[in-house]
Amino acid sequence: MREVLVIGIGAGDPDQLTIEAVKALGRLDAAFLVDKGDEKRDLTDLRRQLLKQYAPGARIVTISDPPRDRAATQYSGAVDDWRRKRAAAFREVIENELTETQTGGFLVWGDPALFDSTIGVLDDIDGVDFSYSVIPGISSVSTLAARHRIGLNRVGRAVQITTGRRLADQGMPADVDDLVVMLDARTAYQHVTDDVDIYWGAYLGTPDEILIQGRLAETKDQIDAVRAAARASKGWIMDTYLLRRRD
Amino acid sequence: MREVLVIGIGAGDPDQLTIEAVKALGRLDAAFLVDKGDEKRDLTDLRRQLLKQYAPGARIVTISDPPRDRAATQYSGAVDDWRRKRAAAFREVIENELTETQTGGFLVWGDPALFDSTIGVLDDIDGVDFSYSVIPGISSVSTLAARHRIGLNRVGRAVQITTGRRLADQGMPADVDDLVVMLDARTAYQHVTDDVDIYWGAYLGTPDEILIQGRLAETKDQIDAVRAAARASKGWIMDTYLLRRRD
Ligand SMILES: C[S@@+](CC[C@H](N)C(=O)[O-])C[C@H]1O[C@@H](n2cnc3c(N)ncnc32)[C@H](O)[C@@H]1O
Ligand SMILES: C[S@@+](CC[C@H](N)C(=O)[O-])C[C@H]1O[C@@H](n2cnc3c(N)ncnc32)[C@H](O)[C@@H]1O
Repeated sequence: MREVLVIGIGAGDPDQLTIEAVKALGRLDAAFLVDKGDEKRDLTDLRRQLLKQYAPGARIVTISDPPRDRAATQYSGAVDDWRRKRAAAFREVIENELTETQTGGFLVWGDPALFDSTIGVLDDIDGVDFSYSVIPGISSVSTLAARHRIGLNRVGRAVQITTGRRLADQGMPADVDDLVVMLDARTAYQHVTDDVDIYWGAYLGTPDEILIQGRLAETKDQIDAVRAAARASKGWIMDTYLLRRRD
Repeated sequence: MREVLVIGIGAGDPDQLTIEAVKALGRLDAAFLVDKGDEKRDLTDLRRQLLKQYAPGARIVTISDPPRDRAATQYSGAVDDWRRKRAAAFREVIENELTETQTGGFLVWGDPALFDSTIGVLDDIDGVDFSYSVIPGISSVSTLAARHRIGLNRVGRAVQITTGRRLADQGMPADVDDLVVMLDARTAYQHVTDDVDIYWGAYLGTPDEILIQGRLAETKDQIDAVRAAARASKGWIMDTYLLRRRD
């Protein structure tokens, strides 16, 4: 049967690859790269670099990301429609680019378990027989914590991982003291009034990595400025942060 | 200055080591192993195996875990007292087992950012000069998701990571649909009455790995039985699970 590997590649540093991921890359006959357009060029470049080093024999097959309504990407309806199109695109490469005994791979940023659609899309495919397995990766969340040298949770307490949109809509949840925020295009931390510390990181694991931490009220304008400048100079930004209630 | 590396080693599979962790192990002059007593012998064995392979030149220094009140380990008071003793024990090995230019390492199970005290203890040390950095690892949570081939969160929604004790005390939080539970010695899932699916995993990443999934109400007794049998035969268990609200 055709085999598909979903390989977590870490959050930006090629040395975040696990040995398991290195072995998986070495087994690939074809690597499927989803092209996200110009703004994420650096992210595609890291994938190509990893393939060159660890999967020199694999054919690289580019899948162009189906267009989607960017303004509405976090609403389930728009996402469902986009996932259907993506399932069709994935199915096509699995069927046509792999013989029945070959192995193909998707290189997933960070950990495939966190805010990534690859597994969901593979589950949506039918009409072609294939098996698949998932190789966990170091997430941007783990990287954020490591760089700031903090735990994500405090002793006996919980940590929640959420999106910028949810933080903007609902504020800091009452039942957790530690909140990790991803996919925040709108600097939702600006509107948090709780007394929290922020541990912020951008381009984690890459040579452009930026780290800022401090009491939110005293730090948020600095983060805004740094964030805006970095985004302007590179053309895109990926940032993640932890909001931690002060005791 | 003395240098200390806190190295995430993954949740049980030696191939979950990252390249960064392999490089870090290769730099160690001394490796500090915290001895947790007989029941966790297998966990110490994995560390010794990794050291043999990747840090053959490092001296292995065993730190015996200060005794603590096991019944009260999740209460902050008992934990604080135990951390103070542990800080003294860590300080001692950093000061006495490393010269001023040497590097020592702690091999931390899973990801040092999740329910692990090493970073907190290092922060508590004073009286000896050292620098330290953290190398993220694949957590049992990422491994659980990979093995079940699921995401931790659903599109646009949050995921919370909590303890068995909190689940037992507070039930399923109202504001999240996906809850990961760690450190559950008391099978707290038994008392959840919400309509959820459970994705359960024990000894993840090891040859003894067990996975069970299904609707909680229909699966929990099976998990109880499997869990009790596994625990009886091995003498200890480590399990983690995701509770996912059904839509
Ligand atoms: C679509 S999600 C993918 C997350 C990925 N699967 C992971 O495990 O990190 C993209 C979000 O992840 C976070 N992110 C990913 N890589 C990052 C990095 N290198 N630095 C900072 N944040 C990052 C950002 O919050 C970004 O909006
Ligand atoms: C003290 S915490 C350490 C967690 C670790 N830092 C991590 O990232 O996985 C121990 C808890 O982690 C979970 N755990 C760790 N390793 C596991 C494994 N191999 N399989 C299942 N659960 C595991 C269990 O819930 C256990 O009670």
